[in-house]
Formats: sequence, structure tokens, C-alpha cells
Amino acid sequence: MIKITFPDGAVREYENGITALEVAKSISEGLAKKVLAANVNGQVWDATRPLTTDATLKLLTWTDEDGKSTFWHSSAHLLAEAVEALYPGVKFWVGPPVDGGGFYYDMDLGGRQITEDDLRKLEVKMAELAKQNEVYRRKEISKADAIRYFTDKGDEYKLDLLENLQDGQITFYTQGNFTDLCRGPHIPNTGFIKAVRLTNIAGAYWKGDEKNKQLTRVYGVTFPSQKELDEYLQMLEEAKKRDHRKLGKELGIFTFDEQVGPGLPLWMPNGAVIIEELEKLAKDTEGRAGYKRVVTPNIAKESLYLTSGHLPYYQDSMYPPMELEGEKYYLRAMNCPHHHKIFAAEQRSYKDLPYRLAEYGTVYRYEQSGELFGLMRVRCLHMNDAHIYCSREQFYDEFRGVNEMYLKYFKIFGIDKYVMRFSTHDPAKLGQKFIDEPELWKETEDLVRDVLIRTKTPYVEVPGEGAFYGPKIDVQIWSAIGREFTLATNQVDFAQGRRFNLQFTNRDNHPESPLIIHRAPLGTHERFIGFLLEHYAGKFPVWLAPLQVKVLPITDKSLEYAQSLSILLKNADIRVEVDDRSEKIGKKIRDTELARVPYMLVVGEKEMSENKVAVRRQGKGDLGVKGIEEFIAEVRKEIIERAPNP
Amino acid sequence: MIKITFPDGAVREYENGITALEVAKSISEGLAKKVLAANVNGQVWDATRPLTTDATLKLLTWTDEDGKSTFWHSSAHLLAEAVEALYPGVKFWVGPPVDGGGFYYDMDLGGRQITEDDLRKLEVKMAELAKQNEVYRRKEISKADAIRYFTDKGDEYKLDLLENLQDGQITFYTQGNFTDLCRGPHIPNTGFIKAVRLTNIAGAYWKGDEKNKQLTRVYGVTFPSQKELDEYLQMLEEAKKRDHRKLGKELGIFTFDEQVGPGLPLWMPNGAVIIEELEKLAKDTEGRAGYKRVVTPNIAKESLYLTSGHLPYYQDSMYPPMELEGEKYYLRAMNCPHHHKIFAAEQRSYKDLPYRLAEYGTVYRYEQSGELFGLMRVRCLHMNDAHIYCSREQFYDEFRGVNEMYLKYFKIFGIDKYVMRFSTHDPAKLGQKFIDEPELWKETEDLVRDVLIRTKTPYVEVPGEGAFYGPKIDVQIWSAIGREFTLATNQVDFAQGRRFNLQFTNRDNHPESPLIIHRAPLGTHERFIGFLLEHYAGKFPVWLAPLQVKVLPITDKSLEYAQSLSILLKNADIRVEVDDRSEKIGKKIRDTELARVPYMLVVGEKEMSENKVAVRRQGKGDLGVKGIEEFIAEVRKEIIERAPNP
Repeated sequence: MIKITFPDGAVREYENGITALEVAKSISEGLAKKVLAANVNGQVWDATRPLTTDATLKLLTWTDEDGKSTFWHSSAHLLAEAVEALYPGVKFWVGPPVDGGGFYYDMDLGGRQITEDDLRKLEVKMAELAKQNEVYRRKEISKADAIRYFTDKGDEYKLDLLENLQDGQITFYTQGNFTDLCRGPHIPNTGFIKAVRLTNIAGAYWKGDEKNKQLTRVYGVTFPSQKELDEYLQMLEEAKKRDHRKLGKELGIFTFDEQVGPGLPLWMPNGAVIIEELEKLAKDTEGRAGYKRVVTPNIAKESLYLTSGHLPYYQDSMYPPMELEGEKYYLRAMNCPHHHKIFAAEQRSYKDLPYRLAEYGTVYRYEQSGELFGLMRVRCLHMNDAHIYCSREQFYDEFRGVNEMYLKYFKIFGIDKYVMRFSTHDPAKLGQKFIDEPELWKETEDLVRDVLIRTKTPYVEVPGEGAFYGPKIDVQIWSAIGREFTLATNQVDFAQGRRFNLQFTNRDNHPESPLIIHRAPLGTHERFIGFLLEHYAGKFPVWLAPLQVKVLPITDKSLEYAQSLSILLKNADIRVEVDDRSEKIGKKIRDTELARVPYMLVVGEKEMSENKVAVRRQGKGDLGVKGIEEFIAEVRKEIIERAPNP
Repeated sequence: MIKITFPDGAVREYENGITALEVAKSISEGLAKKVLAANVNGQVWDATRPLTTDATLKLLTWTDEDGKSTFWHSSAHLLAEAVEALYPGVKFWVGPPVDGGGFYYDMDLGGRQITEDDLRKLEVKMAELAKQNEVYRRKEISKADAIRYFTDKGDEYKLDLLENLQDGQITFYTQGNFTDLCRGPHIPNTGFIKAVRLTNIAGAYWKGDEKNKQLTRVYGVTFPSQKELDEYLQMLEEAKKRDHRKLGKELGIFTFDEQVGPGLPLWMPNGAVIIEELEKLAKDTEGRAGYKRVVTPNIAKESLYLTSGHLPYYQDSMYPPMELEGEKYYLRAMNCPHHHKIFAAEQRSYKDLPYRLAEYGTVYRYEQSGELFGLMRVRCLHMNDAHIYCSREQFYDEFRGVNEMYLKYFKIFGIDKYVMRFSTHDPAKLGQKFIDEPELWKETEDLVRDVLIRTKTPYVEVPGEGAFYGPKIDVQIWSAIGREFTLATNQVDFAQGRRFNLQFTNRDNHPESPLIIHRAPLGTHERFIGFLLEHYAGKFPVWLAPLQVKVLPITDKSLEYAQSLSILLKNADIRVEVDDRSEKIGKKIRDTELARVPYMLVVGEKEMSENKVAVRRQGKGDLGVKGIEEFIAEVRKEIIERAPNP
């Protein structure tokens, strides 16, 4: 018998050799139908693989990220089986699941061209194979046997993969007529795949090197039901309409310029208003939470980054150096070292702690041109950064404060779905992958977990994926249309304080190294505004809207009245414009709607004679006729409260 | 007879060969006693040099910059005469006037050491020689004769200077027993120099190259009266107390760090508060004046700076490039090209103009390490920048608006003394030093002059010193202790619009290139905050003060009351701290005064029982006991009005 420990802490005994699927069946048939894979002692396994020692076990279904990615990986094998069936002789390179959903497979079609029509045929074939409930069978094989197998097949791609694998046991997976060299894991059988969509065909150089042969990459996505596929396709459709690059251009938010350089956004006046409002929000919030602001340069000498360890470990993501007076200077990729220098600039005592330094710091990171994407992958980032220097006793309160700030922001922006990925250390790798401070790891991880549980923050724990210098949280949020974004990290740091020899005098009058919390709840302006464009479909709530009110005179006769209204609104710090064009009122309204302005004041001779305004609210329509003072008071309230859209 | 044109436009006839000094005498003996030199046709001449053609003439006295610098240059010769008298055989290199007042002379003392005592002896000798009213005599001499003269003297330094001079007439100047190779001009005689102070001895490598011999540099300053010297020395004493580097450290405004790099200030929390308040002021002011804000990256490709002309013309002041993916990227030294790109990003019509783009842009400029000085000469600058794109018809109003903004700021900061140096073009150098647009030069210069006159702005006109692309204004301001600072420039630009192919559609539906105004009334944070530290002696007015109110409980019994007051103040957006140390109230008051906090609230059991506060105002002393609401209302008013210190 072996002992199985479940996520809720329960322990049960099972016969040695039982599989996760059989465990699931022992709980309920319904559950077993949903099990895609299993997390066994922290590793993802086939649900059909026998358990032969005591283990912790988590059954993975479609609601788990690892369940989903196993499903898509298995779908890539199904695609390959269908391709092999329709185009015999095709050779395969790799077929992984992809970030953001779905999978691809790279293949050498031997000169054959593949079209959209072929994708439809492949979908049909995949559906047909799926229905056969083909089992994914795992087989361990020696490297020599594996080489023999692919040599016989004449498959230079898989032989190349094998060459780079360590000796010892290799695994093959077979479903139906298709066998692949594969580490796994896979779902129990193809029957789980109920809906298939092949989305795209692209060229991809073998190993990403343009000197190599170009392979064909087929992208696809699959689901456990047709309903989910339909929803996904609808979401994609909506995402296209809300594409932040398209909206960013239409609404005058940002632009790129060839002479300035790729990945370096120029924020246009409307974008700068949003930046300004976000920074105001951060300054208000951080100010009330006792943060102090600083302003530091974008560059520093090589020496600073040797101390911090960014050089050489992070060098590939940094711009190359500038040589000045025999010294190398680097554009910074992170703000922390500059903040540490401000901490170190004065004597600190325990009375000064927690010492919280905030800056919307501009950093530069090198991303290959091919990786750049709108505001989502850029080279210049404005980061909602801060570093909290605290003692061990202060850590719990500080971390809770940071967590609450995240939640407060999510509420303001109507982000209903979010998950904190809490990455911890692996005790087996202390001193190698993780700084050798077992007590501090345990203490801070327990405190972080406690905060997450007590504040009922949704989180998943990812063992062994912490940073070198401490546990970290990656925050994932979902936009209004259900697309996932990784926003920002929140990290604990035991190491940098010592590397920079940061000290404070503790209560016992001894020097002590502070713990450091790195946090950036609003991430970067680039990614966050990119997210907000999609989230709001460009229809920003009033406090964020670049233009808050547009006054539309029905004819020139009410133009002067419109202008006098606009002065009243300006004096109340409301961003307002008058549409003074000689256009029909219908066109004025349509254009203002297109520009996503929250409020329209339509004014004609009637409104003028009554000293009133006819109000239209984006998303709510006609709000009737009001006095201007009443309107101003309502809008001011909305702005000050940072109210969400109606 | 020749015709002499005076600054007021008057023209008078004089005998050919008359000198400026004689012209002055013909006006009044009193004036003649003050004439130090003369501006003849735009060049500074000896007042004793004969005028042999028609000319424009401006008599230069102590109130003219050129008068002062001539005075100090002549004083350097007087120093050399004294040195030669006391230490025969000394050889001289160069002896110019220096920026900010005074002069120096570099000399080879042949191994002799010079001490503070020696400076006192030299001062006595200089005073003695000055009293002899020795005339500065100008003599034109051929280069060959000049070489012979210094070869006979064995003076390798002056021979080296001669080597680098063009052939043709060379001038010597002689006063008393001292003769120097010198371009001049000089004051009429040594009798004008009534007060002498030699201020410093320093080493200086010959030609600034550390491989060369080290010469001795003696600094000095002279005045036309003892009173002026006394005032100057007092000002220096006061300036030492107000040294922005000393105050900056004491008040936690900024710091430098060896690993970050020289010339790269790190703004500490107190400095960041001042930055934030200045930016708020700029944003408020510019917002009301119809500017739009933008946010642009700190770097761009080489190509942008080839278009702008910064490369190669400004390259020496730029950081070296970073090479990325085969492209060179530069840290920007100016914001204009990025703003031009935003102008160019959308179609513009005359209806969109004036288009005003503002950004507190961070720029990087290379200054040699030896030139760096506190916040005054740095490598990283945050600039109160904006660019106004307008049509020719709009130019007058726009320029007037900018000028008024400067004056408004001066009023807020209590800057009573300022001068606008208005630099115009030289018609003889159109197409070479100045862009060949005679009409635009005339038109814009006339308009600028008109603005300056109509707004009664003090200005001096400097012909021939405009920028290549248009007339410019350099703004000079004086701190509360009378030290001069060059703040910022305000420039008209005809050229960049065309270089960047910027266009708008004019009323006639034709493309037209806009005029551009570059302006930065608050200069850079670095220089302006450096100035303000001296100007206010660290005692910032309430709206700018990093800490606005300090609450001092007399004993621990009133500590809780003090803390409840601090919450009320914080809620009213007042920056407040409680001195919760167990110190005597006397020490608390002294420390708070030292930290230059504008308001102190001293609270004991009496104040607590009456629910009041005892208010002390920096610079005003005890203001008596007040209710807290009354106090808050008064301070809020002071903050909102950005009131000056009492």
C-alpha cells in the first residue's frame, strides 16, 4: 500500500501501482471523466501512470493551467496524426502548447503547400480520430533504441532532438498510428478533445535560425466542448475589435516612429493624459500609504550592475553600454539599484523603517525586434515601481499593505478575475537556485501565504519557481473579454540588501540588513494602458478619459453658448472641447461616439434659452436636460471617486 | 568728419580720429570718468582708440557686461605687472576675465611657491601701481617683430601663442613696465581700479593637458570702489552659507553616488517633493495656457539626430552611441526631435494650430568630469520643455504668451532682477551663420522686440548672436543675494520645421511649414532647484517646502494630541511630521529650525486642554495660539496661492 496526500491535507492509502485516474474513479465517476493529468509530488504526470511510492497528488482538470496545457499538447499530437494520415511522409519538429492558449506543430511538408482549405480537412480528420478515443500510451525506451527507431524512419529532425537529450531513459508516446519522441505528459485519450479549430499557418525557420530551412507551423486550439470553442472564437473576434494597437492609433494614444526606433512608444497627448491620471492615482495611493517619492537617473556605471548582479546575469536583456571617459555606462533595466543607493545615502535606524521609496521609473530592456508587439512588448517601460525596506517584524504588515493595494486597484479598474501565482523555493536547491536561508524562506513564505489566505485573494502556489533572492508573486489578470495578461510582480528580496551592504541600526543597536519588497501593482504604463484599451474597448471611465465632455452646438446660433459652457467646465477641471464645425448634429454625435467621449452636451436654442444642457452618456444614452451646475457636480463626483463606467 | 550713431538712434558728426573717450567728454566730464571701453560697430574697442570711419557707438561702463569684463581683463594685466615687479623673470601664459566675475592669470613662477601672504603683498603692489594711473597703450606690430620680441625675452609661452595666430597685425598692450601680447581691449588707465582682492591660488596644467607642466593660476577680483568690493566679499560669504551643495546634503535634497556616476544626481525624497511641486506648477500653468502634454523616450536612432542636425554638430555634448541590431542609438540631449515626430504623426490643419507640446523631458549631456559642479553642471537634466508650432500670424500672440509665463514665474519665486538677452542675426552672415530668410528674421525679431518693449521686460539686444535657426533669448536671473544665473532660453526656430518636413494645411489649403518656439521658463530641475536653494537659503516657501509643518509635543503627555493633529493636517494635504523624540522642547525647536520647516506647532497640556496650537512661523517667530481649523485654513491658503515667504 502507498499513502496519497491530497491538496486539502487528507491522506488515504491505496494499492501500490494505482493510477491518478483510478484514484479519481474511487472518488467519483464524474470526476474521473474530467481528469486530464495529475500533479504528483510537484511534477505533472499522465493520469494513467502508476503511482509506486507515497506521494502528494493533485488531480488536474480543465480549470488548472497544467490541465489545459497538457490538453493542448496532446492536441498537437492529434494534429500530427491527422497530418500524417493525409500527407504521408511528413516529418515533424516540435509541437508545444503556447502561452495564451492553443498549440502549434512545426513540420517539414517536403515542399508541399498547405492552404486554408487543407486546414478545414485536417480539422475534420482530427475530429474523426478524436472520436476513436485513442489512448495516449507512454513507453520508456533507451536512447540507443530511440536513435535506431528514427534512423530507420529517416527522420533527421527527431534525431537532432535526441542528440541533445541526456543519455538514459527516453519516452515515446503513441496514440492511434502516431508515435512521437516526447517527454509528456498527455491526457488519457483523444476522446476528451471535442472541438478543434486550426487557426493559422506560418513559416518558421528550423530552430529559429534564418540560415536554416523554413518549416511550416500550423497553429490550432481545441476544447472539451463545442460551446467553449464558440466562446473562444467570439472572444478572439472581440479582441480583434479591441486590439490596443488599432484603438491606440484611432484615439491618438501612442505612436511609433521609424527614426526613433522600434519598441519605443511616443505617447501622444491623449495617452499622456491617461499616464498622468494613472500616476496621480499611484501618487495619491502611495502617499497615503507612507511611501516617499524619489527621482533617479536612467543610467549608471557598469560597476552598479556588477554589484546588483544584473551584469552578467541579465546582460542579454539590457541595452549595450556607452563608453565614456574609460567607463561603461548602461541604460537601466530595473530601478532597484538606484533606490538602494538612496537608502544607503543616509544613516538609517529601525525608527526610519519601513522606508518606502516610490518612482514611476523609466527603464530600458532589450527585446529582439521580432518579439516586439504594440505596447505589450516594448523596449522602453515606465514602471509603477517601489521598494520597501523593512525589518523581519515589519514584513507581514508591509506585505499585507502591498497586497491590499493590488486589490484596491483591481476594484477601481473593474478587474474581477485575477490570480496571484505565488512562487516558492525548493528546499533541495538551497544554495544553488535559491539563496541559502532556509529560515527566512520558510518565515516569509508562511507570511505571504497567510496574507493571501486571510485576504481571500485567489492564488496558486508554484513550488520551486521563486526568484533566487526570495519568494515572488506574479499577478495574472483577465480583461473584460476574458483574455489573460501578466501584469506585475511582487517580490521579497533577502539578497540585494546584503549585496549593497544596506544596513539599519536595530533596537539592540546592531547593524542589520533590511528585507526588501519589490512591487509594481500597476505594472508598466505600456502594458497596463495596452490592457486598459482592450478592457474598456477604448471607452475609458470619466476620470481616465482624455476628453471627458464634448459640447455639441446644434447650429452656429448656440456656438457661443457652447463656448461659455466649456469655460465653466474647464474652470471645474473637466477636460472639455466644443465641436465648432459646421456639421449636422447627427454627424457631430456620431464622431463624438467614435472618439469614445463619455459625455456629450447637445445644446440648441431651447437649452440656451433655459440655460440648460441636454446630456448624453456613453453606454447609457440620453440622460435628459439638466442645469449646468448640476451636471458639473455630477461629473466632478464621478471623477473624484474614480467611478467605473455605468 | 565722421558720423557717429548712438544707441538711441541719434547721429552726430565728429572730427575723424576722435576717440570714444573724447566723444564721452564732449557729452559730459562725469560720463567720461566712467567709460571703460566702447562698442564700435558691434566690436568692443579701447575707449582711447581713434575712430576713423562712420560708426555706431555705445559707450561701455561698469553697468555693461562688456565694460566689466574689459575692466577685469585689464586687472589681470595689472596683476602680471605686480608679479613681474615682485618676482622678476616670471613667465606668463594667459590671463582672461572669468564667468561670474573677476579674472585669473596663469604663470610659470620658475619653481617658486606662492602663498596667501604673497597674495596680500601682490594686492598692495597692484593698488600702488593702480594709483599711478598708468595708461594701457595699444600698439600694432608685425608677427615677425612680435616673434623677435619674445624670442629675445626667451618666453616660450607667448611664442607658442604667436605660433597659433594668423599672420598680419598683432597687438601689444603696455601699461607701466609691463607689455603683453594681447588682442585687447583695455580700460583707459589703471586708475579706474580702486579695489583689489586676490582670491585664490590653484595649479593649472599648461593648455589644460595633464601631460604638460603645471602652471600657477592666481585668481582675483577688482572693483571701481572699495564699497563694491566689500559688498562682493559679503555676497561671497553669504553664497558660501547658501551653497546649494551644502544645503542639498543637509536638507536631504539630492545626493551623488560613485557607482551611479558623476554628474548624475539622485533626487532624495525631499528633492522629489520640490520636483513634484514644480512640475505641478508647470502643468497647471501650461494646462491653462492650452499646452498638451506628451511622454517620449530618452533615446532615438542616429538617423533622427542626423535629420535634426544634432549629429554631427552637437555630438561632443552627447553621450556616445549604443549599438543595437546594427543601429546606433543615442541618449537624447534635447527633446525637440521627439516632439516634432508627434507633430508629424497626424495630419495637421491651421485649425489645430497653435499646437503646443509640453514635457518635463529628461535629457543627457556630456560635460567633462572637471566641468561638473553640484546641480549647476550635470549630465542628466530634467527640462521644463515645450514646443509651440504656429503660423506666422499667430507668432506674436504665442511669443507674448511665453514671455508672460516667464514673468509670472519670476513673480511667484520672488525673482526681482532679471534680464532677457535678446540675440539677433547679422545680415552680413545670412546663409552662413544664419539661415537665409531675411524677411522672417526681420519679422520675428521685430515682433520679439515689440513684446519685450510692450511688456516692459528688461532686455539687452545682442546683435549677431542668434541661433542658426532664429532669434533667441537667454534669460539671466539674480538670486536674493545678487548672484547671477543663466536660467533658460526661449528660441524661435524657422529651420527644424523644414528639416523634419513638418507641415500643416493653411487656410488656402496649401501645405505650410510652421514656426516653432522652443521654451523652458523653469529651465531644468537641476539648475533651478540649485538656484532656489541659494535664493531661499534652503527656507522654501510653504508650497515648496518638503516638510510644511512639524508638530512638537512639549512632553510625552501631549504626544497623542500631536499625532491627532498630524492626521487632521495630512487629511488637508499638508506635509506634516510629529517630533516624537523624548527630547527637551528647546532642542526640538532648534532641530526643526535647522531643517528649515516653515511652521512649528508647539503643543503642551495647555494647548491640548483648549484644543489649540501654538504656532511659530519661520522668519516671523511666534504667531500666538490658534484653533487648528483656523491654522489649517491659513496654511492651505498659503499653499494654494503659492505665497512667497513672509
